[in-house]
Amino acid sequence: MAADTTSPATLIALLHGPDQPGIVARVAGWIFANGGNIIHADQHRDEGEGIFFQRIEWAPSFAKAGDDVPSPAQFDAEAAAFRHFAASNGMSAQIAVSTHRPRIVVMASKAPHCFHDLVLRWKAGELPADIVGVISNHRDLADDSAHYGLPFHHTPTDGVAKSEFERAQLALIAAVKSELVIMARYMQVLSADFLKGVGCPVINIHHSFLPAFAGGKPYHQAYARGVKLIGATAHYATAVLDDGPIIAQDVARVTHRHDVAALIRKGRDLEKFVLAQAVRWHLENRILVFGNKTVVFD
Amino acid sequence: MAADTTSPATLIALLHGPDQPGIVARVAGWIFANGGNIIHADQHRDEGEGIFFQRIEWAPSFAKAGDDVPSPAQFDAEAAAFRHFAASNGMSAQIAVSTHRPRIVVMASKAPHCFHDLVLRWKAGELPADIVGVISNHRDLADDSAHYGLPFHHTPTDGVAKSEFERAQLALIAAVKSELVIMARYMQVLSADFLKGVGCPVINIHHSFLPAFAGGKPYHQAYARGVKLIGATAHYATAVLDDGPIIAQDVARVTHRHDVAALIRKGRDLEKFVLAQAVRWHLENRILVFGNKTVVFD
Amino acid sequence: MAADTTSPATLIALLHGPDQPGIVARVAGWIFANGGNIIHADQHRDEGEGIFFQRIEWAPSFAKAGDDVPSPAQFDAEAAAFRHFAASNGMSAQIAVSTHRPRIVVMASKAPHCFHDLVLRWKAGELPADIVGVISNHRDLADDSAHYGLPFHHTPTDGVAKSEFERAQLALIAAVKSELVIMARYMQVLSADFLKGVGCPVINIHHSFLPAFAGGKPYHQAYARGVKLIGATAHYATAVLDDGPIIAQDVARVTHRHDVAALIRKGRDLEKFVLAQAVRWHLENRILVFGNKTVVFD
Amino acid sequence: MAADTTSPATLIALLHGPDQPGIVARVAGWIFANGGNIIHADQHRDEGEGIFFQRIEWAPSFAKAGDDVPSPAQFDAEAAAFRHFAASNGMSAQIAVSTHRPRIVVMASKAPHCFHDLVLRWKAGELPADIVGVISNHRDLADDSAHYGLPFHHTPTDGVAKSEFERAQLALIAAVKSELVIMARYMQVLSADFLKGVGCPVINIHHSFLPAFAGGKPYHQAYARGVKLIGATAHYATAVLDDGPIIAQDVARVTHRHDVAALIRKGRDLEKFVLAQAVRWHLENRILVFGNKTVVFD
Repeated sequence: MAADTTSPATLIALLHGPDQPGIVARVAGWIFANGGNIIHADQHRDEGEGIFFQRIEWAPSFAKAGDDVPSPAQFDAEAAAFRHFAASNGMSAQIAVSTHRPRIVVMASKAPHCFHDLVLRWKAGELPADIVGVISNHRDLADDSAHYGLPFHHTPTDGVAKSEFERAQLALIAAVKSELVIMARYMQVLSADFLKGVGCPVINIHHSFLPAFAGGKPYHQAYARGVKLIGATAHYATAVLDDGPIIAQDVARVTHRHDVAALIRKGRDLEKFVLAQAVRWHLENRILVFGNKTVVFD
Repeated sequence: MAADTTSPATLIALLHGPDQPGIVARVAGWIFANGGNIIHADQHRDEGEGIFFQRIEWAPSFAKAGDDVPSPAQFDAEAAAFRHFAASNGMSAQIAVSTHRPRIVVMASKAPHCFHDLVLRWKAGELPADIVGVISNHRDLADDSAHYGLPFHHTPTDGVAKSEFERAQLALIAAVKSELVIMARYMQVLSADFLKGVGCPVINIHHSFLPAFAGGKPYHQAYARGVKLIGATAHYATAVLDDGPIIAQDVARVTHRHDVAALIRKGRDLEKFVLAQAVRWHLENRILVFGNKTVVFD
Repeated sequence: MAADTTSPATLIALLHGPDQPGIVARVAGWIFANGGNIIHADQHRDEGEGIFFQRIEWAPSFAKAGDDVPSPAQFDAEAAAFRHFAASNGMSAQIAVSTHRPRIVVMASKAPHCFHDLVLRWKAGELPADIVGVISNHRDLADDSAHYGLPFHHTPTDGVAKSEFERAQLALIAAVKSELVIMARYMQVLSADFLKGVGCPVINIHHSFLPAFAGGKPYHQAYARGVKLIGATAHYATAVLDDGPIIAQDVARVTHRHDVAALIRKGRDLEKFVLAQAVRWHLENRILVFGNKTVVFD
Repeated sequence: MAADTTSPATLIALLHGPDQPGIVARVAGWIFANGGNIIHADQHRDEGEGIFFQRIEWAPSFAKAGDDVPSPAQFDAEAAAFRHFAASNGMSAQIAVSTHRPRIVVMASKAPHCFHDLVLRWKAGELPADIVGVISNHRDLADDSAHYGLPFHHTPTDGVAKSEFERAQLALIAAVKSELVIMARYMQVLSADFLKGVGCPVINIHHSFLPAFAGGKPYHQAYARGVKLIGATAHYATAVLDDGPIIAQDVARVTHRHDVAALIRKGRDLEKFVLAQAVRWHLENRILVFGNKTVVFD
């Protein structure tokens, strides 16, 4: 699943645009004509909207096992040529190189479970990326961050204007050239300004089965309603709270024996698992956002 | 699970009231002092509300294997005595005899899947009850009902005032002395008057994971929101649409490849399964309704 | 999901053979060069074995919405040409026309649940096929078959040599030109001769999570071992009992409270669901058998 | 769920013996007569074997909120009296005090995921126990153990006779008076002598859905068989490999796209979750072993 660094590098394109006859053959033909070898291809047609979606991965002609490592410029040139080809067919394309490891900033508050889970998965080689920093409005995770060898940044929120501490956070994110921000149970609502300024995708984990129980204290809401399943939802953060494109969801069975504390405990496992899955899919370039929904090529 | 008609009959009490020290021993002691033998007992304390809940099943002294079959009057007397005992301890109690098979009316519209599923489970011996009639606002299920040997009643809704067709339905339900009404994807909203007049519990299946997507066309709502799981919810019908106490819920995984038709098809399996489970729990006297929630002793 | 009979017909090819550079582009190119439009394509590489697998569906040039319905001979010619193309690239291909409805024979014994489930799904339009007959070694399902309008054939097994009743069954299957046989909890072990003679795939449902509890009385085996999950497995029948390529599996949670009868009851839901899923995938030409395993393009 | 150290202490008894009329009332009556208040009670009858099982938790007369903390001697006396009462009714009883935190030794090899998961749950307050040491045949987890404040003991196995390194391990386990040993993916088969000498229960996690794929390399076995679900099983270790009483199991869906490495990665989540659940149930005194099976009062 994760990119194997000993394999030759590949290019991965996420394409979408108006559906049209022959488009699959035309994409495959372009890659073939340029000397590439298609490794994976998966496509989807939204029949209602008339949209074609594709994830296609290929080994370009210049990246062969045993050869010299190709230069970034070679990949950039191939990506640019493909983007040009896509555009000339009415498609937009995002293109990634499989060996590129995006830089990640993790934001957290006091709850440590998603933080540890992400870092330990990363250390176990499950996430093809580099976690380059931790930002928190509390100091609770400072020692663990140090043990993990991660720079820890404390941006207190108590008694500080949101515009001010968010500015500090944005500066930290920009300084490390972060390509993904993960809200690992960071407990502050992000402002529209933050999201406008962050400059990279933000993945959030919400501790309910959205759209049920959006907003604060979802486990308390679930308990009050007497549901028989609790859930967790990973989504891209947008300016509307808990309303962004959903990436992954899961649920767990509960009964009348589970009080709010038990829901919170049981929910932690869901949150860890769902957030990690969403992050892995994102890093493997499997997610295409279209409108307020996602196409996940898993 | 289902009552075995060759076993001696038992009494099943569902009790609840303010929690108090010694209550478990007192209930057990009463049954023992009356010559009964406790077969199952399960209790729950709601610590927040200070309420004690119990399901307790016992073989009364007069119902022993090999003896003459005890008379209904004997059960009635024991039940009355227990209820009196419960009341004197501040508890309310519902009591059922395990060999009693409640009379069920199934209401349906055009969609046949929940209807067939319930009837076939009943014929397979999974439901300790008797389905005594089918009411529908369409004729689609008339032939199948006849094949199953079930009286079928057509109460058309098109061009008929709701108060009028509901009056006809209530008369049919009363005429067969129904003790449970199951809405097997019956597609009309029940009026508050219907629910006031029906005289027995009504179990409904809603085709979403409530409280998400209450109301009409839940699969269309789910598709529009881009959720990654669809659900079904069985609940007791109350005057507020899709808001009654939840009995059972389940979900199934979906992807961007599932259009609304696929959600509907996949959802049918959920609806059948969740509705059947709720009905079985109800018939086995496992459900205590408290406020707008259920305690399910499974 | 199911073939929509109002859509123009498509061809669906299941391909496999030694992996080779450019194969995706070559297949797409052939279809394009022949005037076809690719609707879906999904592929898989078994890196260990070096095998390429693909399911590809296309609308051929002669089958356009609004046109005259193309003749079977046109499809046959396109299929033959594609097979030739595949062979010349070292691939073998099975090809189906989306509008073709395979003829199915269902074999059952006394247990009715999988039988009803399959027939009701078929009547609900979930299975793009035609059930053309029921064969059973008992008479229990004769009336229900008649109600469903299905020819019912009784091939008694008690006091009859296996070679004799299997000969009768094979004759019935051949007479209706069956293209798929479904063992819907048919409780006789099929002989190697039967499987050699049947002339079409046979899908079986085994009531355990294979390879655990192969052979007889799997729920009794599961109870004795004290497992916490029970399962069901749909697989293609082969001459080795319960050892054929697995198509679909599912499990359900059980506890010490479930005796063997409860496992059997709970297992019925698994068996129905897993068998139906396997049959649907088979009918939608999503399954490629390779060695003793399946590739399921879902 | 977890014992709340601010609550008054309770006694938890796990009872079993031949079923007999009136036993529920007699147990409740004994507790009541001794001034205790029953907090939870759950029972089970194995009808086939004629065995009665019960988990019962009560607040003894001498342990009331606000009072002085009762002495261990008071609990010992009540436990001894209850054991005497149980024996006189043909029952055996294990009794625990809710505030007692068992001492745990974790054994691991190189794979870190179950080790981190258990320790982080413990630090989050999910496990009412004290991890007092880590034993490993490799040094990989030494630094992390130090960071967690846990004594780490290296007992190399390479080039050392099993009898010798097991003797060292048993000495370490005895020295810390361990009351539970957890094999957190410790990759050596335990000898019968080890299990005889360890003096406390041993919980193991096996990375398959037992009884399928017992023994070595279960993910490789699962891949070779082409199963569609992988599993994990937590069980008490016995002298027969992978054959002890099963406590908890879970599964995850896989497809042909998952190679062995992907099964291993996906399986890690199952292993962590299933092992943690088994350990929590054990620590909450919810598990009664009977023959080669468990009764789990969850």
